[in-house]
Amino acid sequence: MKFFEDCEGITEPQGFFASGVPCNVMGKNNGKLDLGLLYSPRACTAAGTFTTNDVKASPVLYCMDLLNDPKQNFHGVLANSGNANACTGKQGDLDCVKMASETARHLKVHSKEILVCSTGRIGVHLPMSRITAGIADACQDTLEELDGGKAFQEAILTSDTRTKSCSAQVETSSGKVTIGGTVKGAGMIQPNMATMLAFLSTDAAVSQTFLQQCLSGAVEQSFNRMTIDGDMSTNDTVLFLANGFSRVNIEKESKDIISEFKTAVSRICACLARKCVTDGEKVTKFVEIQLHGASSDRDADKVARCIANSLLVKSSWYGSDPNWGRIVDAAGYAKVGLDFERFDLWYDDIPAVERGQPLPANKPKWKEIVSRKSFVIKIHLNSGSGSAVLWSNDLSEEYVNYNKSE
Amino acid sequence: MKFFEDCEGITEPQGFFASGVPCNVMGKNNGKLDLGLLYSPRACTAAGTFTTNDVKASPVLYCMDLLNDPKQNFHGVLANSGNANACTGKQGDLDCVKMASETARHLKVHSKEILVCSTGRIGVHLPMSRITAGIADACQDTLEELDGGKAFQEAILTSDTRTKSCSAQVETSSGKVTIGGTVKGAGMIQPNMATMLAFLSTDAAVSQTFLQQCLSGAVEQSFNRMTIDGDMSTNDTVLFLANGFSRVNIEKESKDIISEFKTAVSRICACLARKCVTDGEKVTKFVEIQLHGASSDRDADKVARCIANSLLVKSSWYGSDPNWGRIVDAAGYAKVGLDFERFDLWYDDIPAVERGQPLPANKPKWKEIVSRKSFVIKIHLNSGSGSAVLWSNDLSEEYVNYNKSE
Repeated sequence: MKFFEDCEGITEPQGFFASGVPCNVMGKNNGKLDLGLLYSPRACTAAGTFTTNDVKASPVLYCMDLLNDPKQNFHGVLANSGNANACTGKQGDLDCVKMASETARHLKVHSKEILVCSTGRIGVHLPMSRITAGIADACQDTLEELDGGKAFQEAILTSDTRTKSCSAQVETSSGKVTIGGTVKGAGMIQPNMATMLAFLSTDAAVSQTFLQQCLSGAVEQSFNRMTIDGDMSTNDTVLFLANGFSRVNIEKESKDIISEFKTAVSRICACLARKCVTDGEKVTKFVEIQLHGASSDRDADKVARCIANSLLVKSSWYGSDPNWGRIVDAAGYAKVGLDFERFDLWYDDIPAVERGQPLPANKPKWKEIVSRKSFVIKIHLNSGSGSAVLWSNDLSEEYVNYNKSE
Repeated sequence: MKFFEDCEGITEPQGFFASGVPCNVMGKNNGKLDLGLLYSPRACTAAGTFTTNDVKASPVLYCMDLLNDPKQNFHGVLANSGNANACTGKQGDLDCVKMASETARHLKVHSKEILVCSTGRIGVHLPMSRITAGIADACQDTLEELDGGKAFQEAILTSDTRTKSCSAQVETSSGKVTIGGTVKGAGMIQPNMATMLAFLSTDAAVSQTFLQQCLSGAVEQSFNRMTIDGDMSTNDTVLFLANGFSRVNIEKESKDIISEFKTAVSRICACLARKCVTDGEKVTKFVEIQLHGASSDRDADKVARCIANSLLVKSSWYGSDPNWGRIVDAAGYAKVGLDFERFDLWYDDIPAVERGQPLPANKPKWKEIVSRKSFVIKIHLNSGSGSAVLWSNDLSEEYVNYNKSE
């Protein structure tokens, strides 16, 4: 497998075109690209995963409904930043339909063949006349087959500081297939902005069932492994489109190739998720928590999340303070029956606590590790074979300052 | 009922003496009072509630064990600040026993008649020679019956900025009974400091069962209703001692008096809990969340906690930004089946969202309310009769800065 970062992303596979245009969603007139379109002239199968928040934005409900029909094909995705179209009632649902139908009209496809995503402020109606004008521009760009992968990446950003993309190539018996992906930040860029959107595309020919299976497996081990501030959005969405342009039917390939394709999807999702965490709002550090020896994977996940979401733990990371006491405290309130006398903890490969006994002689080494931009905290509960990995980051004063008001 | 704040607290009831002495627990030689003793020459019945963290500090396990025997009487409580005696292994357990036996020796009571509490740094052994010397001083002060209620209040503080106390007097058919209480901060004062300790005393004569019943009921509606940063400590403890000095047997009084006594205990716990939240670490605002109309009280509590512990919601309070969108988002990820079309939200008495429809005309009023030092957020889910109240506060940049390192 060949793997690339910071590339065209979703337009790396053949037969996909993208664009990003400014349509002034927030009314700030700052020229920011804020409407993106991904378009495949060839019909695609599509898979998706969505936020599990009780409060789902209109575009989330819209996409879930369309993907519910396994026979439905798609030609593209329209995504705007600056406004989440969440908590916007019936008008929000109508705006969603309008975005799809306007796009479909320009692209001369059926309205149901266009997916819609939004990210941004909650509780404000979309400025539909400006969006409609933007859709015309975005469609024109993709129809002219301009190379707009980067523009699309920019158009979906909110408080992210940089675009994020990667792609993978898999050689098969019938030729090469490519998978591309891009994501926008899991950090909260502006007040009420709290969404992760990720898009994947491939020129492989695959069934909807297989595509969804690949995506769900990969998302569970990537996007679902990250937590920046514990706040789950109303809009989180991952979409994966396959247009079959390569004429390679992955499901008819050998077991090894199928497995390599799945690995490629997983690697793309993992790469995008890590980029997201690193570009979290006002983040200075990337921390991987490896939790082993729990009674079950679920318990391991619970403990890891308590640690990763603890304000005190996150504050200490920001201050380059190892502070294993806070980590133990957070692990304890996960209430999975933790026995501290069996508790092991390492910073990278340096043991800090062994069977509940701190090893203070190693302290200078832990301190050095925690002062790095990226490190691993490994914990063993020695109570079973359940494990979990979680990607997180620190909490900075700047985060609070950044999010304190509109 | 008469009610007093900022008083002698636990020495307001008759027959209780207290002291607070400096014994240099942290080795900083700053003269801070850090060892407190509450002493009743008359034997007391006692009740307690404790942290439910899997990782419990030695003194928590020690007290739980003693209170397990309903026939056990007590003469006092020794409490130190600066060191939590948590994650300290067998040595920690031995140090606990030693603290009790040393105190008992000076007071000429049985070792099992002394309860022990600690709050402070996790994972460091207590400086036992200094503690032992402090115990001698503390015992001498209480034996001399000095009025040390305030000194005790000071001795248990860590990052709290002020002492916290209150008392209540209830008239009964056989005379007056008094209940007093004090608490130390639920905020995190120093790295690894994460404990709430509260002490109540009364000169009423009551059985252990009745005392525990009064306390558990009151704690559930007070200390268990507050969340400052979502981090549950290894040491949280509430102890309630009754020495019967007034010779008023509450349980033999009329229903009304019994009820008034219970109300007095509840009011003391509520008063102390509110003082705790207001004095949370680097806190600028007190916020009461009233959650109504959930399917069950448990669901209501879940939703209220998601809101109160959301970093984004807390950051917006700090910035005096009402931001109902973040509140709805947090309520939604409690996953109790929230239907936004039935969702109502008020800031104090000003409606902001009605059945999922924002009321932007009221925005100037919400903004004014959220800029106050104290306000109420009332939510109605209109899906049942479950309700919950939670007391919380904002998250400031100073909190992160304060907790970023040792």
